[in-house]
Amino acid sequence: MKIKCMKQNILNGLRIVSKAVPSKTTMSILQCILVDCSRGNIRLIANDNELGIETVIEGEILEKGIIALDAKIFLDIISKLPENDILINTDENYITNITCEKSKFHIIGKSGDEFAYLPEIKRDKCVTISQLTIKDVVRQTIFSVAGNENNKIMTGELFEIKEGILRVVSLDGHRISIRNIELSDDYPDQKIIIPGKTLVEISKILTGDSEDKVKIYISDKNVVFEFDDTIVLSRLIEGEYFNVDQMIQNDYSTKVTVNKKEFIDCIERASLLVKEGDKKPIIVNISDDEMEIKINSTIGSLNEVLDIGRDGKDMRIGFNPRFLIDALRVIDDDTIDIYLLSPKSPCIIRDEDSNYIYLVLPVNINTVD
Amino acid sequence: MKIKCMKQNILNGLRIVSKAVPSKTTMSILQCILVDCSRGNIRLIANDNELGIETVIEGEILEKGIIALDAKIFLDIISKLPENDILINTDENYITNITCEKSKFHIIGKSGDEFAYLPEIKRDKCVTISQLTIKDVVRQTIFSVAGNENNKIMTGELFEIKEGILRVVSLDGHRISIRNIELSDDYPDQKIIIPGKTLVEISKILTGDSEDKVKIYISDKNVVFEFDDTIVLSRLIEGEYFNVDQMIQNDYSTKVTVNKKEFIDCIERASLLVKEGDKKPIIVNISDDEMEIKINSTIGSLNEVLDIGRDGKDMRIGFNPRFLIDALRVIDDDTIDIYLLSPKSPCIIRDEDSNYIYLVLPVNINTVD
Repeated sequence: MKIKCMKQNILNGLRIVSKAVPSKTTMSILQCILVDCSRGNIRLIANDNELGIETVIEGEILEKGIIALDAKIFLDIISKLPENDILINTDENYITNITCEKSKFHIIGKSGDEFAYLPEIKRDKCVTISQLTIKDVVRQTIFSVAGNENNKIMTGELFEIKEGILRVVSLDGHRISIRNIELSDDYPDQKIIIPGKTLVEISKILTGDSEDKVKIYISDKNVVFEFDDTIVLSRLIEGEYFNVDQMIQNDYSTKVTVNKKEFIDCIERASLLVKEGDKKPIIVNISDDEMEIKINSTIGSLNEVLDIGRDGKDMRIGFNPRFLIDALRVIDDDTIDIYLLSPKSPCIIRDEDSNYIYLVLPVNINTVD
Repeated sequence: MKIKCMKQNILNGLRIVSKAVPSKTTMSILQCILVDCSRGNIRLIANDNELGIETVIEGEILEKGIIALDAKIFLDIISKLPENDILINTDENYITNITCEKSKFHIIGKSGDEFAYLPEIKRDKCVTISQLTIKDVVRQTIFSVAGNENNKIMTGELFEIKEGILRVVSLDGHRISIRNIELSDDYPDQKIIIPGKTLVEISKILTGDSEDKVKIYISDKNVVFEFDDTIVLSRLIEGEYFNVDQMIQNDYSTKVTVNKKEFIDCIERASLLVKEGDKKPIIVNISDDEMEIKINSTIGSLNEVLDIGRDGKDMRIGFNPRFLIDALRVIDDDTIDIYLLSPKSPCIIRDEDSNYIYLVLPVNINTVD
């Protein structure tokens, strides 16, 4: 194989596909990026069998061929080379010469025979969404995906299309995040569970331009995101997602309207008094047109009062400050509405049109001051 | 004690003195910052008995007094408060209220009785140097201070004044860094060894303005840096520093003139092939008007040729790439001169006026390809 590419083109391609290279694996072929120039274009591919990424880069094929190169070394070398044409040249023993100006690297590659290409997916029907929207919904929901694998379904996000609305849901047992997006076209109802890891990685690759589109193809076991010159293929999580509708009550006894930034700043101050690993709740005390935030720990105490708009009765309720902050930070509105039913019922933060709904379970503060 | 200060004033002061708070200690008083308002100004002090910092901040003293507060908590709280006046109020039980707008923190302080104030130093004679110069010489020498305490003297830097020249030296057994600065005033000859840690911390505090000056007072056991509203006091390292003059030979058989950036880039590329913890040398091969850089490791090999100016005979010599890069990075010149005597003699990088001299020991490559 012999190809010539501008440094920046290979580098961009490598940065994209390397998102599918596992950080730890015992199979050395999984740590490789495949350079496939057998079919008339230069394709870079990485695939850890859960997540696979393929991208086509611009360049000149001087001799067809295929080589698998260690992703880390390959990326390190390309990123340190001068901004100029790079020549990659391999022989029958997989010895690979990477040359740029007066710099000549020799590394040993691998045959592409063991490499698992991305499976072919039937692409008859697709859903088209802007890159910006995908990035936004992931940013606004990914934090409440469960970190550990005890419940596999919780490590993914529900993507559900129903009556022209895309609904994205994540939950981890303490909180639920929901984003609803109106789609511009009509699509049949469908739902899938996409691994959180896939969404994190795809968010990093997407440019986030509202003009640029992502085509999403869904099969039984996989989902494919197609955009620019890139294909991201991910396994789906199998199983039935939780019925979140029945977890979210619509009645409330207290509605609070508060400035989001003031509320975040106040909770962040309160969090200073919580030692890492400690589960100290903050106490929210709503009376008249004030919301008092209190915390009392071994380090000290904080007492702060926020001006609010209020509708309904007084309330005293406890929260894990982290869970409130996570939700508040991803909301783009300056003022938010919080709905409370009782000190033991979940707190709901949502806008009027339910574009977003965040549910946070309270902490029992009967035993706490 | 009761004081009122603008948030930014306390915050700046805390950031300065907290550089003298040890990250780990069993004595909880050392982790405190002392607020001393007993003498008509607001002084913040931290002191770990090796390094002590005192700074005066602007503010209003409503009631005189002294309190010691945990540095981390104090700094965390102040930095998270709104940009406004902060009121700090303590009672006889050291309960400290920190109030800003509608935020009220209560933390428990300590009596200042156990706190070690900075020792008084006789300030009859001082050396005055610009902040920029101090920052520069530290940046350009600190990397070759020895990290481990096996040889205490190597963990510090020599500051020597002789015939109107300030000479700053550090060495770690593999390399030597020297900076010579012409002083604008006359001072008596003197030399001290300042702990590397002190120099690192003081560099962070100095603004680096060439107009702003630092006054340096030297006593038998201590050095004091005085600038702006701040005093930094450090213990000196006792003992006789190494005689570096006899380590630096002035004759050479090969002189190489090379573009610094090209040389750094090339060594950085070569370093990609060195696994962490591996001691693989790079081989520098000088012949004609070219310098060939080679490395050959289990990962692969690199071969690169740089155009150079050359004076003297051919040479083949090996180096630890890290040591060369450390020195090259801090040199401000675009083109550098390298002086070599033999493959077993140290390499010297210096400018014509010896404003800087870097010595790097070679690695034996007889056994290496």
